[in-house]
Amino acid sequence: MKVALAQLNYHIGNFESNIAKVIAAINEAKAQSADLIVFSELSICGYPPRDFLEFSDFIAACDAGIRQIAQECIGIAAIIGAPSKNDSGMGKPLYNSAYFIADGKIASVHHKCLLPTYDIFDEYRYFEPGPECAVVAYKNKRIAITVCEDLWNVGESAIYSRSPMDSLAGQSPDFIVNISASPFSDDHREHRMEAFRENALRHGLPVIFVNHVGAQTELIFDGGSFVMDAGGNLTDELKYFEEELRCVTLGDSSAAPQLQGHTGKIERIHDALVLGVRDYFRKSGLDTAILGVSGGADSAVTLALAARALGKERVRAVLLPSKFSSDHSVDDAKALVETIGCTHDTINIEGVASSVEAALNPYFEGREADVTEENIQARARGLLLMGLANKFGYVLLNTSNKSEAAVGYGTLYGDMAGGLSVLGDVYKTDVYELAHFINRAGESIPMNSITKPPSAELKPNQKDTDSLPEYDILDKILVQYIEQRLGPNEIVAAGYDAKLVARILKLVNTNEYKRYQTPPTLRVSSKAFGMGRRMPIVGKYLS
Amino acid sequence: MKVALAQLNYHIGNFESNIAKVIAAINEAKAQSADLIVFSELSICGYPPRDFLEFSDFIAACDAGIRQIAQECIGIAAIIGAPSKNDSGMGKPLYNSAYFIADGKIASVHHKCLLPTYDIFDEYRYFEPGPECAVVAYKNKRIAITVCEDLWNVGESAIYSRSPMDSLAGQSPDFIVNISASPFSDDHREHRMEAFRENALRHGLPVIFVNHVGAQTELIFDGGSFVMDAGGNLTDELKYFEEELRCVTLGDSSAAPQLQGHTGKIERIHDALVLGVRDYFRKSGLDTAILGVSGGADSAVTLALAARALGKERVRAVLLPSKFSSDHSVDDAKALVETIGCTHDTINIEGVASSVEAALNPYFEGREADVTEENIQARARGLLLMGLANKFGYVLLNTSNKSEAAVGYGTLYGDMAGGLSVLGDVYKTDVYELAHFINRAGESIPMNSITKPPSAELKPNQKDTDSLPEYDILDKILVQYIEQRLGPNEIVAAGYDAKLVARILKLVNTNEYKRYQTPPTLRVSSKAFGMGRRMPIVGKYLS
Repeated sequence: MKVALAQLNYHIGNFESNIAKVIAAINEAKAQSADLIVFSELSICGYPPRDFLEFSDFIAACDAGIRQIAQECIGIAAIIGAPSKNDSGMGKPLYNSAYFIADGKIASVHHKCLLPTYDIFDEYRYFEPGPECAVVAYKNKRIAITVCEDLWNVGESAIYSRSPMDSLAGQSPDFIVNISASPFSDDHREHRMEAFRENALRHGLPVIFVNHVGAQTELIFDGGSFVMDAGGNLTDELKYFEEELRCVTLGDSSAAPQLQGHTGKIERIHDALVLGVRDYFRKSGLDTAILGVSGGADSAVTLALAARALGKERVRAVLLPSKFSSDHSVDDAKALVETIGCTHDTINIEGVASSVEAALNPYFEGREADVTEENIQARARGLLLMGLANKFGYVLLNTSNKSEAAVGYGTLYGDMAGGLSVLGDVYKTDVYELAHFINRAGESIPMNSITKPPSAELKPNQKDTDSLPEYDILDKILVQYIEQRLGPNEIVAAGYDAKLVARILKLVNTNEYKRYQTPPTLRVSSKAFGMGRRMPIVGKYLS
Repeated sequence: MKVALAQLNYHIGNFESNIAKVIAAINEAKAQSADLIVFSELSICGYPPRDFLEFSDFIAACDAGIRQIAQECIGIAAIIGAPSKNDSGMGKPLYNSAYFIADGKIASVHHKCLLPTYDIFDEYRYFEPGPECAVVAYKNKRIAITVCEDLWNVGESAIYSRSPMDSLAGQSPDFIVNISASPFSDDHREHRMEAFRENALRHGLPVIFVNHVGAQTELIFDGGSFVMDAGGNLTDELKYFEEELRCVTLGDSSAAPQLQGHTGKIERIHDALVLGVRDYFRKSGLDTAILGVSGGADSAVTLALAARALGKERVRAVLLPSKFSSDHSVDDAKALVETIGCTHDTINIEGVASSVEAALNPYFEGREADVTEENIQARARGLLLMGLANKFGYVLLNTSNKSEAAVGYGTLYGDMAGGLSVLGDVYKTDVYELAHFINRAGESIPMNSITKPPSAELKPNQKDTDSLPEYDILDKILVQYIEQRLGPNEIVAAGYDAKLVARILKLVNTNEYKRYQTPPTLRVSSKAFGMGRRMPIVGKYLS
C-alpha cells in the first residue's frame, strides 16, 4: 500500500486556506498513485482552535470543509483530523476525530480517546473521550487509526486509565496511523520517538505518524512526521519546520531509510524561533518588525532571528541610547545593525525621559532616585518604539529572555512590551549559545555583545549581577523550579544555597503579575510562561 | 444534629492564615455545641490553586495542614476540602477531596467525581475523578458528602456521563453536604439555587451548601452558603460577599428561615467589585491605589468603587489633561475627586506628549496625524501614572470597560495599563447603571459624567460614536457573541444589521492580541475576558 504523509502548515480558522492545501495535497498524492493520504490532527481548522470550538458556526464550517474534501477523495482514501459532534446526548458536545474518507464519502469517524489536559493542552475543555475504537479495513489492510495522545500512555506515565491501542490491537490491525498536533519543545523529538517505538514494539506493528508543522502564535509545531517499522526502526522521517508531502510504500524493505540528520538542541531552538517569528507575521498579515537594539546579547539575537525569519528588509532596528548607555553598547549595536544590514535609526531618549521627570518632579522632590527612574527610561523606549510601530504598521518584537521574565527583571510597558516575545522561553545562558550558533557562518553578532557582563544600563555602571546571581547559577535554579517543578527543599538538596533558592523562588512567584501582561512567548521548552504555566497572581506561596 | 456552616475567605497558598481561620472556626463551633462543622472546597490551600498543585511540597503542606486541623476536631466532626493523593498508580496524581474528620483523626476521604473543565475551570488538568462514592455514618445520621460540581449535572446540562448523587442516594443518606468554590457571576445565584433545589427534590433530602467567600485575583467567590430542606425550600442563607459562621439545627422546623434580602444585578456587581478590589490589595499586601480620572463615567465609577473598597485615604486620583481635554471634563473630574474626598493632583501631559512627538518628528514628517498621536497621549498618561505608582508603591487601577476591551478601543501600555482591571467585565451600559446605583445615597459621580456623550478626548471633538455604534446597540451584539456564544448568522437573525455585526465581530477577534496583555479583570459575568475565554491570537475566523 502506498501512503502519502501530508505534513502541512495550517492556519487556525482559515478554512479557505486549509481546505485548499488539503485538496492540493490530495491531487498531488493521486498523481503519485498513492492509495491513502494521511493528514494531521484537526487539520481542517488548525490546532489549537481553542474556544472557537464553542461556536456552532465554527463547527458547521469544519463539517462543510470535510464534506468538500470528501468529494475529492475518488481513487484515494484519506485520514484527516476534524472535530465531530457528540450526538449521544451525554458528555462534552464534541469529539476530536479522525475521519476516514473513501470513495468520495465519509466512511467512518474515529474519536480520540486520551485527551491531553495539562501544560498547554486543554482538550477535555471541549471534547468527550472516544467511547470505543474500531480498526478500518481498506484494500486488504486493517488500519488502527489513533489521534496523537492515544499512543502516549506508555513508559512511566499512567495518567490515563485506558489504552486505546490495546483495544485496537485485539482487532488484528496491519499498521498504526497516528495523526498528531505535537508541538515542539527542545527535548520533545526524543520523547516522541521513544513513545512511538514502544507502541511499535509492543504491538509488533508499523507506525505512520503525521504531525502538524508551523507556528500558531506561541506554539510551534515542528513536523518531523515519520514511518517506523514493526521493529521500531525509522524508515522515513519528514523535514522539521517545513511542509512536506511524501509517499511511502509500506513494507518495502528494499528502500533505503530517508531520515533527517541529527541536530542539536540550540539548532532546533534556532529553527523553531525562526519559524515562530515568520508564521506570526505571515498568519497575522503583518509585514515589518521593529525592535530596540541595545548592544546586548538579547536584542542582538532577536534581531538576527527576525532578519532570518522575515528578511533584513522587513526588520527595522532602533538604537535608543540614554545618558547611561556606554560607548561600547552603542558601538556594538551599530556594528550589529550594519552587519545584519537592516534599516536602523538612533533616537536619544533623554528628551522624553527628562520631560517625564520634569512632570513628576514636584511629587518626587526630596526622594532618592530608585527603580522608578529606571522604569521611566525603559518606558520612554517602549513609547518611542510603539509610536513608530503604530505610525508605520510595524509590530514590536520583545527582546526579553526567560531568566529575566522569571525573576521580573524588566519593566512592564517598557522593555516588556511587544507583540511577540521571541526569546521569552530561552534562558540567558542559552541566548549566548544561540548567539554563537548564529555566528557559525561568520560573525554577525559582535563578540563583545556576547562576552561583556550583561547590563540594563539604566543607571551608572549597572550590571545584572548587582541584583541577580550569575546567570549560570540563576538558570540552573530556574530550570529546576520551572521545568522540573521541584520545590525549594529539593533544589537545596541538589547543592544550592538555601537563602539564594528562597530569594529566587520568591522573585519568580511575586512577579507573576508582570508575566500576566507580557506578550505571547514562542514556546521552545517543556514549560514556557504563558498558557502552559498557570499560576495564581494573588497567592502567597514561597513569596 | 447541629451543623456549623463556615463560610470563610481563604488566601491561595497562605497555609498559615488558612489553617488559623479554620481552627478558629472549629473553636467557635465547639463553643456553640455544634456536632459538625463544614468548610468549603479546597479550603486548606484556597481556590483555585492552579499549577501550585503540581509541586509536591505544596501538596505536602496541604497534607500537614489537614493533620494539624484534625487534632483540633475533638468533640466535633469536620468536613473540609483539600487535595489528596491518588495512590492507585493510574490516572491524574491528585483528587479534589472532602476530608471527613472525627475524634481527632481523618475518618474518610471523599473524592470529587465531576471535574469542571470549562470557562474558568481547569480541574481535569490536575485531578482524577473520584472512582466511587460512600455515605458517611455519624451520630446516627448518614451524610452524602459531595464537592461542588458533583451536584451540577442537572437540568438540560449533561456534560458528564455519571451522577455521583444517584449512587449516594442508593446508600440511604439523611442529608446532602456540598462543599463548594462557586464563583460569582451576575446570574449565578439563581442557577445555583435551581441546581440544588433539583437535587433536594429529586432525592427528597435536605442540602447543606458551604461556599468560599472572597476574591482570588479575578475570581470573586460570593459566599451565600445555605441550607435547603427536602422540599427545596431555603431555611438558612448566609451573607453574600462576607465571612460568616452559622450554626443550624437540622430538621428544626420551628426556627424561622434566616435568609438574605433580594438584591438586583447591579447591586450584586457593585458588591462583587468592591470585594474584588479590597481582596486584591489585602491579599497582595498593597496599600494604596492610583488611577487617572478623566471626567468620564468609567474612571468615575472605578474611583468610587476603589474608595468604597479601600477607604478614600488609600486612593490617589490624578487628572491628566491635554490640549484636547474639554473644560467640562476637567470640571467633572474635579467635582468627582472633591466629592469622593481623595488625594488628587493634576499633571498636564502636554510636556511629555510633545517631547515624544519631537523625538519622532523626523520620522513622521509629511504624514497625517492618526491613531498614533492618540496612542502617544494615552501612553504618556500611563507613563506618568506608573511613575507615581512605582515611586510610592501604589498600584494602578485600570478603568477600561468591557465594551472597549471587546472591540479594542484602547491603547496598549496606555489606558490599558494597570495592576487590576475593575470594570473590564462590565459593559459600558452597565457602567452607567453602576454610576446611578453609586449615586443612590446622594450624588458622588457628577451627572454630567453619566449623561454626556462618551469621548476618549484624544483629538478635537472626538466622540466614541465616531468609530463605534451607540453602546446600547454595541453591547447587545457583544453579549450575544461573548456571553451567549452566538455566531454572526444567529445574531443577524435576531434583528441586527449584517454589516454591523460582521464589523463588530471582526473587531472582537482581531483585538485578541490586545486583551492578551491586559491586567487581570474582576469577573462578574458568565463569560469574562481572561482565563475563562481562551481564543487564538493568530487565527483567521470572522476576521
